[in-house]
Amino acid sequence: MAIWGSNKNMPRKLLEFLNGKNCKADEILLPHNCKVVLAYCGGLKTKGIITEEEFSRCKAALIELEGSARLGKIKIGIEEEDSHTVIENHLIQMLGDTGKKIHIGKSRNDEALCVLRLYCKEKLGETKNLVLNAVKLLEEITSKHKDTEMPGYTHMKKAMPTTFSYWCKGFANLFEKDLKALEFAVSYVDYCPLGTAAGFGSTIKLDWKQIANELGFSKIEENGYGAQNSRMKEGAMICFVLLQAMMDVNKMATDLMLWNTEEFGFVKLSKDATTGSSIMPHKNNPDVLEMLRASAGKVAGYQHQIQMISNNLPSGYNKDHQEMKMPLIEAFEISIVSLEALLLVLEGLKINKEAMANALTEEMGSAKRAADLALGGKPFREAYLSQKSA
Amino acid sequence: MAIWGSNKNMPRKLLEFLNGKNCKADEILLPHNCKVVLAYCGGLKTKGIITEEEFSRCKAALIELEGSARLGKIKIGIEEEDSHTVIENHLIQMLGDTGKKIHIGKSRNDEALCVLRLYCKEKLGETKNLVLNAVKLLEEITSKHKDTEMPGYTHMKKAMPTTFSYWCKGFANLFEKDLKALEFAVSYVDYCPLGTAAGFGSTIKLDWKQIANELGFSKIEENGYGAQNSRMKEGAMICFVLLQAMMDVNKMATDLMLWNTEEFGFVKLSKDATTGSSIMPHKNNPDVLEMLRASAGKVAGYQHQIQMISNNLPSGYNKDHQEMKMPLIEAFEISIVSLEALLLVLEGLKINKEAMANALTEEMGSAKRAADLALGGKPFREAYLSQKSA
Amino acid sequence: MAIWGSNKNMPRKLLEFLNGKNCKADEILLPHNCKVVLAYCGGLKTKGIITEEEFSRCKAALIELEGSARLGKIKIGIEEEDSHTVIENHLIQMLGDTGKKIHIGKSRNDEALCVLRLYCKEKLGETKNLVLNAVKLLEEITSKHKDTEMPGYTHMKKAMPTTFSYWCKGFANLFEKDLKALEFAVSYVDYCPLGTAAGFGSTIKLDWKQIANELGFSKIEENGYGAQNSRMKEGAMICFVLLQAMMDVNKMATDLMLWNTEEFGFVKLSKDATTGSSIMPHKNNPDVLEMLRASAGKVAGYQHQIQMISNNLPSGYNKDHQEMKMPLIEAFEISIVSLEALLLVLEGLKINKEAMANALTEEMGSAKRAADLALGGKPFREAYLSQKSA
Amino acid sequence: MAIWGSNKNMPRKLLEFLNGKNCKADEILLPHNCKVVLAYCGGLKTKGIITEEEFSRCKAALIELEGSARLGKIKIGIEEEDSHTVIENHLIQMLGDTGKKIHIGKSRNDEALCVLRLYCKEKLGETKNLVLNAVKLLEEITSKHKDTEMPGYTHMKKAMPTTFSYWCKGFANLFEKDLKALEFAVSYVDYCPLGTAAGFGSTIKLDWKQIANELGFSKIEENGYGAQNSRMKEGAMICFVLLQAMMDVNKMATDLMLWNTEEFGFVKLSKDATTGSSIMPHKNNPDVLEMLRASAGKVAGYQHQIQMISNNLPSGYNKDHQEMKMPLIEAFEISIVSLEALLLVLEGLKINKEAMANALTEEMGSAKRAADLALGGKPFREAYLSQKSA
Repeated sequence: MAIWGSNKNMPRKLLEFLNGKNCKADEILLPHNCKVVLAYCGGLKTKGIITEEEFSRCKAALIELEGSARLGKIKIGIEEEDSHTVIENHLIQMLGDTGKKIHIGKSRNDEALCVLRLYCKEKLGETKNLVLNAVKLLEEITSKHKDTEMPGYTHMKKAMPTTFSYWCKGFANLFEKDLKALEFAVSYVDYCPLGTAAGFGSTIKLDWKQIANELGFSKIEENGYGAQNSRMKEGAMICFVLLQAMMDVNKMATDLMLWNTEEFGFVKLSKDATTGSSIMPHKNNPDVLEMLRASAGKVAGYQHQIQMISNNLPSGYNKDHQEMKMPLIEAFEISIVSLEALLLVLEGLKINKEAMANALTEEMGSAKRAADLALGGKPFREAYLSQKSA
Repeated sequence: MAIWGSNKNMPRKLLEFLNGKNCKADEILLPHNCKVVLAYCGGLKTKGIITEEEFSRCKAALIELEGSARLGKIKIGIEEEDSHTVIENHLIQMLGDTGKKIHIGKSRNDEALCVLRLYCKEKLGETKNLVLNAVKLLEEITSKHKDTEMPGYTHMKKAMPTTFSYWCKGFANLFEKDLKALEFAVSYVDYCPLGTAAGFGSTIKLDWKQIANELGFSKIEENGYGAQNSRMKEGAMICFVLLQAMMDVNKMATDLMLWNTEEFGFVKLSKDATTGSSIMPHKNNPDVLEMLRASAGKVAGYQHQIQMISNNLPSGYNKDHQEMKMPLIEAFEISIVSLEALLLVLEGLKINKEAMANALTEEMGSAKRAADLALGGKPFREAYLSQKSA
Repeated sequence: MAIWGSNKNMPRKLLEFLNGKNCKADEILLPHNCKVVLAYCGGLKTKGIITEEEFSRCKAALIELEGSARLGKIKIGIEEEDSHTVIENHLIQMLGDTGKKIHIGKSRNDEALCVLRLYCKEKLGETKNLVLNAVKLLEEITSKHKDTEMPGYTHMKKAMPTTFSYWCKGFANLFEKDLKALEFAVSYVDYCPLGTAAGFGSTIKLDWKQIANELGFSKIEENGYGAQNSRMKEGAMICFVLLQAMMDVNKMATDLMLWNTEEFGFVKLSKDATTGSSIMPHKNNPDVLEMLRASAGKVAGYQHQIQMISNNLPSGYNKDHQEMKMPLIEAFEISIVSLEALLLVLEGLKINKEAMANALTEEMGSAKRAADLALGGKPFREAYLSQKSA
Repeated sequence: MAIWGSNKNMPRKLLEFLNGKNCKADEILLPHNCKVVLAYCGGLKTKGIITEEEFSRCKAALIELEGSARLGKIKIGIEEEDSHTVIENHLIQMLGDTGKKIHIGKSRNDEALCVLRLYCKEKLGETKNLVLNAVKLLEEITSKHKDTEMPGYTHMKKAMPTTFSYWCKGFANLFEKDLKALEFAVSYVDYCPLGTAAGFGSTIKLDWKQIANELGFSKIEENGYGAQNSRMKEGAMICFVLLQAMMDVNKMATDLMLWNTEEFGFVKLSKDATTGSSIMPHKNNPDVLEMLRASAGKVAGYQHQIQMISNNLPSGYNKDHQEMKMPLIEAFEISIVSLEALLLVLEGLKINKEAMANALTEEMGSAKRAADLALGGKPFREAYLSQKSA
């Protein structure tokens, strides 16, 4: 039961409706919540609201709980509502009255936002590392394929000659821009909201900057409306920034699948990255590429979900905000595993240089021929037309 | 391991990436898959490909497996890929060579589509029942509140007098239109795709109409492109039809929350349908209404996900199609639990007739006064202007 | 100036903000609005609120205005707000006091909804005809290519042999399902909302069924909440139904572009349906197919726009509802022109039978070989595995 | 006719389909395109491909064309395709052979992207100024309402006391974060793509950094895949960044409409910012607020459109990319006019201090009372429970 004594007569069907998915989300967020409560207890201690000794006992209990949570050992029942309750219950059970002291001046509204931002910063960091690895891997491949000529396509038709390394380098550049977007997202959530409480400021004054510092935030939120009204915006923002990377993954997978057809034959996937058919013995399907292609759509769907839920809502915390947790978590999980899978696919990719070279046709030099004529004195448009009729 | 021997060297990370979520979805779809395989075995028996006795043994094994699956006892490992493999593995383990015979002429492509359609028909039926219950409940309330006068609002401003029953009846009408949309969705998926195999027709000819009939489908798919290319479309269609009902739920919840504010005070939620605050002892929050409001956005997000994933894909089965299972299942689960919760909320809702009556102000009669003047001979627009300046 | 005298001091910037786009939409809807007002005047006449002679004069004026509007001659200024005002102003200018009588018992809320439904029914009819033409054309092509063998693909890899006619027939089937969805959409909006006024019923009682009948509606709306709250839902519904057809167009275009690459070479577009490059003289780009591919995304965007705008809004007319006009009109225009363009492309399409036949490879018979072995007595899965290792 | 002689036999229906909307977009982008061509001509001059004198004549012609375009005087016919053709045609008509020289080494692909980025930088600048004005105005209002107490709401229920200035300050903070997002978007598109031509590099080598510098870009694109594959991503990014500001506008409008109801009565809109009803003489509707509320959904729809169109497309320029121009332009136009309208609304807003003060109820002090008890020694959770039962 929620420690504040509500919900006790709520039908189980409603409890499940309200808390079911949220408890799953909060099992994932629980470690970060422990960190937040610990830093908050530090603030209470500094202010003299709990003693040094009470703080130490809280700290030990929270560290232990965080450890169990990281191992996935803590399950949250629907009657407990959320991770905040789990922690307060846990501290009361372990420490008695001390546990009852810790929620003073804090609301679940600022606490949940703080937990989410901490989680986002951690996961954005993981994502950045993977994107960085993709950049490095692509640059390695780039350096190996400087001379691997192949057709460049526009409108899905042969356009001009290019190299496989040019394609790799292009995606390295795109991922580098994604890195900047990921860094922007970090700066966007790098505000500690503790002290804004339910959205109208706290009833007690702690050293909010010190608490923020403890948690690794570089700035604090000055205003509760600013904090609570940014929650859905930043959920959408983070999904969107992840989507930027997934859009690149989508396009790489699309290109590679085209080049992996029997008709193009430019690349071949490692056997271990293809799957079979239940009916056609000969098949080697590029399922991993197809799943990579699908990731962008999934993340876009989660972004959309957050935007739909939040549009036209009034200021301040609304329960609907809870429903951005699961899409956000899913968006991170999809993005991270997709980047990992992409790295595996690229590492095992075989390039068929001969097929690429054979696909270069004479007509693909038409732009160059027109330009050469133009450099020789013929106005470019006339040179172009002369090649067209040729 | 997938029975056809592929994937055996695939890194676990990739297996998890490919099959992780799908195995969860297939645990839910497994009972329907058992039904499909059973009907298919019936077709093989009629054709003489398996014997009467082999069919009986398959039947027993499939019924038992379906039972376990309905109880949630069957977990699908990522190395097994999906429910199709689980079934074939199970039959081989139980029945030896007989089990190895059953996949002839069938692909996972037509099988999965058939399973999904069976699942959708069952869940659309459940949804229809709940919507019908909502219509009935609203009509009951309508009949109790014929005389409960209240303001009608446009642009969120007092417009003209109306009654609470008029509001209830309006939503009953909306849900009745949703019922028609749900019925349309049933007819949309009421085609048995078995016999289209991988998408290009089966290598053997069974009595497809008989099999369809056995499974409760009224029509069969004549063409594999038609079948496979409709999968994502119908996933989106079903989400959209569910969304139609959720849009009504969204609007009812929005109205009720407005009327539940201290300022309006027209309705009061049953105590058991509100929750408390961790910091403010006095709070009774309408969390259930907020969660109902959020459901439309969630379903819209899943619809969007399916549309994003499928846009710009070529014909035929692509692995990306697998990724419409989870959003579809989620859309059903959200819609069904939301309708159940709505019924509970409406049953416990208290109407404050006095507050509603008190909110009727004199200016709200202006349209009637203008009309009365017009009926008395003054051209309407002049009557209107005379009331405006009044 | 709006005839009811408001807005006269509104800054032009705000007038433009409120009415700018809406006036463009209403120029398109004006002919349908004339029809609605004419039928309404008929109701006023029957009730004796205007005389037979007044009705005749209104009729003449409205028919003339409708004619001018159909020719695109009527421009609506932002200070006039909308087509409703244009009509009332026009009638007052032409007929004096008679014109001032016609708006009694009517609100712009029910009028606008009625106009939109009339417009939708007309445009759904046009769309249906085009889809029907696509079905016919595809069936003609089907009958010509019964023997045009080609590879069938799954996962973008060669799967099993099929024919070009099988592909055509598959899309004919898909469009036939779209026709059913279009018909459902017609039935969904086939309710005349006149008489619900601002959303709370009319101050006068006309023969609503007779008016509905005059306008070609088969049913009437009984309830103003039902009417006003369905507006955004049906806007989304119609976009979604159009999207179903556009999804098929999207997939056809995607397939054809793949087959139009130099590497596949299965089809060739008519020269008149391709465009050139400004830099590469040799290029013939399938721009028409690319634009067809883009149409689905555009319509999906408009559907999404309507859903985003309407989510979380309270009951009754809100000005936001106005903003579903333009996306709805755009969705129709895109869908209709895309279907027209598709027909032109299909008519000019050249099929390269030889290239198709040459692309059939021996391995594509593996499923048949396994099935044949199985029919000869070997359990299917063993037959399959024997072909795999072969 | 397109200068390169294609399309001359294309049916008018297809020309309209391909170019209709694009020509409207390009009329808006034409001034920026003139700037791009001028800078490019500068590069050709430096390289000696055109003479100093030819450059001067090009410059004069381009400046004149830009001027006409800024005045909206240039209409682009569908047979001309786009602004690039208009410019080349214009220069050829004015300057003969000199005009035929200027497209050497350039494709419409890099040119269009360059034009779009220039346009975006200009419009992002305008948006930033308006957001900055909103911050300033909100801070002015903040300073005037330090003592204007009012209820703070969570879950749409009275929560804790706050002030009107706290609300204003919260939105000022939110807009300040939006400014950072707008600045990030500027940096995201601040790469000159000239020199990447059709996507595979130019056939001639100009001083790309110098050209970029001339156009005000701080960086250049090194890779054609990087350039072309970022086009749809940055279209989506800019819509999303605009949406961030529109989400704040959406929430402000939603709050103000709630407070503008007769029941709340906290604020009153300036008479000049409300509109009337055609049937109810007494109405003053907050149409401007409703339109402001709708803007977020509209921009979200355009973002979605771009994402839908681009997902699952292969690398390099595809005609579908053209279709991001109109949604992008619309998103800017909506955002800019909405911010302007918001400023007008806020300037005319009347605050009803008395109504706000009267709405403060005794129960709203419960959190403070519990905290005070806790500071006095009672563990917080017990203090809380004591207030709950009170």
